[in-house]
Amino acid sequence: MMLNKFEENIGYKFKNQDLLKEALTHGSYSYEQKAAKSVVIRNNQRLEFLGDAVLEISVSHFLYKRFTDMPEGELTKFRANLVCEPALAERARKLNIGEFLLMSRGEDSSRGRERDSILADAFESVIGAIYLDGGFLESLDFVIKQMEGDIEETLKTFRTSDNKTHLQEVIQAFSKEALVYEIIDTKGPDHDKTFHATVSHEGKFLGEGIGKSKKEAEQVAACNALEFLKKQGVIQ
Amino acid sequence: MMLNKFEENIGYKFKNQDLLKEALTHGSYSYEQKAAKSVVIRNNQRLEFLGDAVLEISVSHFLYKRFTDMPEGELTKFRANLVCEPALAERARKLNIGEFLLMSRGEDSSRGRERDSILADAFESVIGAIYLDGGFLESLDFVIKQMEGDIEETLKTFRTSDNKTHLQEVIQAFSKEALVYEIIDTKGPDHDKTFHATVSHEGKFLGEGIGKSKKEAEQVAACNALEFLKKQGVIQ
Repeated sequence: MMLNKFEENIGYKFKNQDLLKEALTHGSYSYEQKAAKSVVIRNNQRLEFLGDAVLEISVSHFLYKRFTDMPEGELTKFRANLVCEPALAERARKLNIGEFLLMSRGEDSSRGRERDSILADAFESVIGAIYLDGGFLESLDFVIKQMEGDIEETLKTFRTSDNKTHLQEVIQAFSKEALVYEIIDTKGPDHDKTFHATVSHEGKFLGEGIGKSKKEAEQVAACNALEFLKKQGVIQ
Repeated sequence: MMLNKFEENIGYKFKNQDLLKEALTHGSYSYEQKAAKSVVIRNNQRLEFLGDAVLEISVSHFLYKRFTDMPEGELTKFRANLVCEPALAERARKLNIGEFLLMSRGEDSSRGRERDSILADAFESVIGAIYLDGGFLESLDFVIKQMEGDIEETLKTFRTSDNKTHLQEVIQAFSKEALVYEIIDTKGPDHDKTFHATVSHEGKFLGEGIGKSKKEAEQVAACNALEFLKKQGVIQ
């Protein structure tokens, strides 16, 4: 049976397979059935509503425990990277969700099975279905297993996206003069300050940036300096 | 002890009271302590990150189970009403969170204990702390107990905000002529249509509205007609 095969893909066996069926029913299919045969079939939109929230707490839980000193702002950015539509669609593709989706012939023929929005929604619906079928811990477990690889991947980009180091390497290639970072402005109350940094080289302005810490403002300035040097054709 | 009193207010006893202390520490306090005594004290921002997600799944869970036929769009609107900052600040005030918050003298003297953003964040932090201390079901239970009244209240407004009925009553007061609703445009694919409705009376245009169903479009049109009649001074 189709659904059993899908359960193997996701590594979870439903007590109530109707929930899985609902999670794999796109809105276009219910509409088509209603128009053609006046049959009302539940689609996955309500499960997606629920699954979206289960995904959010599961990823938040994981990040909170995994990075015990990461400030709230970074946790939020990290989470946003993980739960964005393209990332979820990618997870859905790994599970071949598209192949198992019920959708209208119209959607099907306009490549609905490959569309990011449909796949991401279906992935969230499956999470919602597992939550209802097996409870919170089962769904948490499923999400973490699914996302763990993404988390480590995102982490790499997070860590290696050190723009100051990158800019330093670029400049060293043709000059011995050091880069100069300056904080030129500070705004806001003490516990919620914003810093404005600039970076220059041999007296020439390269870029500026704003951030919630001096370090962040400098990183943004370095990133803008790299953009600037790219536009100037200094680097590729 | 202060914390015990707060635990009575919220009806939850912490195994690890340090979590509660953290939830009740505003960022301004850690900053002040660090500046004055070089002491690092955790503030509630990370718990707020977590609590925000716990709140979202808890409210979603409740709404999903309570309204078994409510479409996803309405569930989303309903949830947004419940978890918005002023609503959360109101919950926080009922628990006297402001009184128990640690904050800098600056924040305190600029009425920080009464500010919506600070109170709503602290409320979410407490939810995050309960989640870590007692697990998902404890936090779900806490959120539902806290929000149940709001949910029933919101439901009343949701149900009684029937603009078509209201407009009908207004018009009946000075005319026997019926209101005329028309769907003048329909857009989008079959399963995701948008309707454009107008409402008029005695040939006079009163308002228009757009919605995901004919009924919703008409309700919006009626709402706009009521606004229009208010501006015209026909009704108060």
